[in-house]
Amino acid sequence: MMKYYNINTPRPIIPRKRMILVKLGGSVITDKGRYRTFDREVTARLAEEIAMARRDVVLVHGAGSFGHMLAKEHRLHLGVTDGSQLLGASRVMNDVRELDLEVCRCLSDNGLAVVPIPPASCATMRDGQLEHVDLSIFHRYMDRGMVPVTYGDVAWDGVKGLSICSGDQMMMALAREFRPEKVIFVTDVDGVFTADPTQDPLAKLIPQVDAATLDALPRTERNVDVTGSIFAKIRYMIDIAGTAGECLVLNGREPGRLLSALRGEEVVASRVVG
Amino acid sequence: MMKYYNINTPRPIIPRKRMILVKLGGSVITDKGRYRTFDREVTARLAEEIAMARRDVVLVHGAGSFGHMLAKEHRLHLGVTDGSQLLGASRVMNDVRELDLEVCRCLSDNGLAVVPIPPASCATMRDGQLEHVDLSIFHRYMDRGMVPVTYGDVAWDGVKGLSICSGDQMMMALAREFRPEKVIFVTDVDGVFTADPTQDPLAKLIPQVDAATLDALPRTERNVDVTGSIFAKIRYMIDIAGTAGECLVLNGREPGRLLSALRGEEVVASRVVG
Repeated sequence: MMKYYNINTPRPIIPRKRMILVKLGGSVITDKGRYRTFDREVTARLAEEIAMARRDVVLVHGAGSFGHMLAKEHRLHLGVTDGSQLLGASRVMNDVRELDLEVCRCLSDNGLAVVPIPPASCATMRDGQLEHVDLSIFHRYMDRGMVPVTYGDVAWDGVKGLSICSGDQMMMALAREFRPEKVIFVTDVDGVFTADPTQDPLAKLIPQVDAATLDALPRTERNVDVTGSIFAKIRYMIDIAGTAGECLVLNGREPGRLLSALRGEEVVASRVVG
Repeated sequence: MMKYYNINTPRPIIPRKRMILVKLGGSVITDKGRYRTFDREVTARLAEEIAMARRDVVLVHGAGSFGHMLAKEHRLHLGVTDGSQLLGASRVMNDVRELDLEVCRCLSDNGLAVVPIPPASCATMRDGQLEHVDLSIFHRYMDRGMVPVTYGDVAWDGVKGLSICSGDQMMMALAREFRPEKVIFVTDVDGVFTADPTQDPLAKLIPQVDAATLDALPRTERNVDVTGSIFAKIRYMIDIAGTAGECLVLNGREPGRLLSALRGEEVVASRVVG
């Protein structure tokens, strides 16, 4: 039975209780340190795990090295005021679409009927904040049995000209609309740690993350990222966790963890509490 | 001076008198007879001609062999009723995005700040007809000095499940909204002929095409195309011509013709009259 939504009338929040919202982090599908380097092996395996789980999913992916490096070079996080920045923004749009195409091909190769929905054509920003997302687009294709895929992008901004719409901002908008059963952040480490685990051998996985945990974390940085620090990301996760039945951060480089989490099995991860 | 549009309120038709609407036909940017074969050489040159003209343009391109062959194989023009068709639709979406990325890279390599706007995320269909296009998206990026690029795609259909949204249907919607100074259809032949010029050496270029010309044309077909025959295309062109100051069909494989037309110079072409 299909439902129809008129995109011109306001709609109430529509929970999709059996739906799982998955973010494939830029650090797991790309090499964040090398410009435009897609990790096909890891992404193809993650796509296979998503397909094997046979769950209704909506997917968001980061831009990784297809977005952040060039966006930083053109200072797009500060807004767009001159012509060279416009061309830079256009190039970043091309690059993130190249990455999205790679991700979508991995997904459809595993039998998932994906439909790419770019923020540039469904969202508007205001001074760097997500102002509006046309979520009816997502509903429409989900009602057809398709898997919406969106991502970090450059989008129109009413104040800054253009600005960066991060995958995490899209996660928040989607989580608020869909009230998913579960939200999974797939990263390149086992979860949220007491310190940067790639730098500090004494870093410990935090099994349960909440606002108090966040305040206690030390402040370090890793790689270029124009959408904010790991702290901003955790802050987003905590807010998003409040909309969902469960919110996990796990390691997508370890085979089987995403599949286990999608199936509701116990898995090495940090549980985020809103 | 930038203008802002609220996408939630109805707007009057906004003519863009100095704007030129250009359709790059699938037959000129791809080899329509060979699956997923992009003609980079011709497309790069056309991109250069568009950049050299220094005019405000909105671009639409066909899907060519990135869309029609697989769409026909999956019978997408008849609508979508089963799961294998859904996956087929998803694959066609991926393929046309691959083509669009190639086209956009050619354009941004020539200094044009393009923004891709896929019909799947800005348009809805009803029984194969274009029902609604969120044209505010086009306005917003044009107000920023960017060049919107859209294309033939698969899109949500309220009756058929999904259906094909052709580049010509998008041309019509854009022409009605923008009332462009000029509309240019770039094809692989010199214009509209009395017969198929690739088959019939006696075929003659028709300098001025109107409804009466169309009725007099013989009925022949060439290559696979799920969006209708050449007659349907000419019918669209005649309707579109009624919205614009001038409407030309010209040969994009001949260097300089698109540039001349963009500059308002005399050029070998058919002039379509609405």
